Amino acid sequence: MNTPSAVRWHDGKLELLDQRKLPAVVTYLEVTDLRGGWEAINTMAVRGAPAIGIAAGYTLVVAMAGEDPNLEAEPEQFLARLDQHAHYLASARPTAVNLSWAVRRICARAKRSPTLQAIRDEAQTIHEEDRASCRAIGDYGRRLIEPGNGVLTHCNAGALAVSELGTATAPMYLNHQQGMSFRVYVDETRPLLQGARLTAWELSEAGMDVTLICDNMAATLMAEGKIDLVIVGTDRVTRNGDVVNKIGTLNLAILCAHYDIPFYVACPSSSYDPETKFGHEVVIEERDPSEVLGENAARVAVRNPAFDVTPANLVTAIITNRGIARPPLAAALERLMMENST
Amino acid sequence: MNTPSAVRWHDGKLELLDQRKLPAVVTYLEVTDLRGGWEAINTMAVRGAPAIGIAAGYTLVVAMAGEDPNLEAEPEQFLARLDQHAHYLASARPTAVNLSWAVRRICARAKRSPTLQAIRDEAQTIHEEDRASCRAIGDYGRRLIEPGNGVLTHCNAGALAVSELGTATAPMYLNHQQGMSFRVYVDETRPLLQGARLTAWELSEAGMDVTLICDNMAATLMAEGKIDLVIVGTDRVTRNGDVVNKIGTLNLAILCAHYDIPFYVACPSSSYDPETKFGHEVVIEERDPSEVLGENAARVAVRNPAFDVTPANLVTAIITNRGIARPPLAAALERLMMENST
Repeated sequence: MNTPSAVRWHDGKLELLDQRKLPAVVTYLEVTDLRGGWEAINTMAVRGAPAIGIAAGYTLVVAMAGEDPNLEAEPEQFLARLDQHAHYLASARPTAVNLSWAVRRICARAKRSPTLQAIRDEAQTIHEEDRASCRAIGDYGRRLIEPGNGVLTHCNAGALAVSELGTATAPMYLNHQQGMSFRVYVDETRPLLQGARLTAWELSEAGMDVTLICDNMAATLMAEGKIDLVIVGTDRVTRNGDVVNKIGTLNLAILCAHYDIPFYVACPSSSYDPETKFGHEVVIEERDPSEVLGENAARVAVRNPAFDVTPANLVTAIITNRGIARPPLAAALERLMMENST
Repeated sequence: MNTPSAVRWHDGKLELLDQRKLPAVVTYLEVTDLRGGWEAINTMAVRGAPAIGIAAGYTLVVAMAGEDPNLEAEPEQFLARLDQHAHYLASARPTAVNLSWAVRRICARAKRSPTLQAIRDEAQTIHEEDRASCRAIGDYGRRLIEPGNGVLTHCNAGALAVSELGTATAPMYLNHQQGMSFRVYVDETRPLLQGARLTAWELSEAGMDVTLICDNMAATLMAEGKIDLVIVGTDRVTRNGDVVNKIGTLNLAILCAHYDIPFYVACPSSSYDPETKFGHEVVIEERDPSEVLGENAARVAVRNPAFDVTPANLVTAIITNRGIARPPLAAALERLMMENST
């Protein structure tokens, strides 16, 4: 089974699959400096919380590789420069906890060992851990899908958002690999259509049975009995189990509660944020009105929050790379994350 | 206050505002024969249940005016020909109860008086009744909106869908006319964006405070406390009070139930269908996948139901031209509709 790579790293060269052009054009964008990485993250050439983290790690490597080679001889200046770059890069998408998390990891490693080699190793470790994390989420989550099920997902928490198997899609990929037959319904995910452009594309490329719907059709499919479970990804899960994810996720969670359909969230440990107690403390990025207006809409005011907050009490379970957290979520998450912290 | 006219009838000439081109281009399409009327209804140049009914009535007049003038001398042949045209026209959009209702009214009138003059009078009566009906809905519904409220609507049940004041929008137009200050949130309404293209346009043209959102953002606005009530139109209300309306309406009704927000449906008596007991008996039109796929989506299977069915128990009240029906809806509707039937 081939899954696309959102982030490629080879011989010190960083390439990002330009997801703004998918599925029409499959093209990689080379990141040669800090500004290029910031732009790619900010304009969503690379998107999806874990992929952003991976890209950010490598972007710092590229940025520091572009500095005067003598800088390594002066650890304090090396660290100061890295810190400056890190601070700037973290501003590219403030809601994505993986961005600041990856940037902090690179800086922490550099503090122990202020060399280019060390931060390069750390960036690669972040990437490798992510692959392993997706596989673990797939292994824990696969039993939630039964043959013949209809699985609904929103936005893209697939291979394009993460690495290899994706998070929300990992249980689907693994079951599909084993020959299980089930149908995936994909919300198109307005305004940027990540579901229609990315998820529908990657899952159908992998040979799955994919049906695309508009976001506002999910209720009808549930009423028809077509949806047996919902699995979405997340940009951040706060300590109490609130889920910050792509706008439209809260909508699905409420529909699931109404129709008594399980609502699952796939969350790698890198997207768990115990520092933030509740979802409502997270500042939600409000994006440009033009994304909603497009070519055809009347020229009126627009709201365009990129994410929403699904309260923990609407979540059936959170599938993590360390096991499945069931309510009460706060305690379950803490236990899983503490057992074996990275 | 200027509201646009979806249907214009002047000296035997039928013109339809081509709503597929709004808001970029404001252009009228002349209907010169039966086929032209069928196409305009089928391809949604004219849309909105009542406007479809009005356009259908006039289309039959145009079609019969195109027949041999001697046909009037032979009433049976006149009626047979009208019946043939009526049958064909009714197939243009099977879900819209107003279409078959208008067509039946024209035929019934012709049976009593098989002349071109009679069916022309009937078509104009349908149009005039619709104007009066919108005004009555506005009068009954206006007290449901309070100063400072946030009102959410879906699709277009405005002047463009009906005549003059629209149905769902009539309470908004009348309150706005009186200088009341409130904000209207408009769902863009995928896949055809009637909210973004039509409702946002007509309400902002009238000077209202309009904010456009994607369909999947409604839950967030409700969670933020921005929405005090929802008012939508309907294509058909069945005897038990189930509401058939644009896809996405059911979604809003479930969200309203979750957040304890009133969910109102504006329904002229022409959209009340006592012959059909339950919403699930209505055949829902499944439209072309290309509407959902657009230019950018991956080439996968698509579901594209044009309407959904909101069960009566999710409806706070139905605002009709004869008063407000509150639960139990079946009895309330029957009482209102029987009191003074047209």
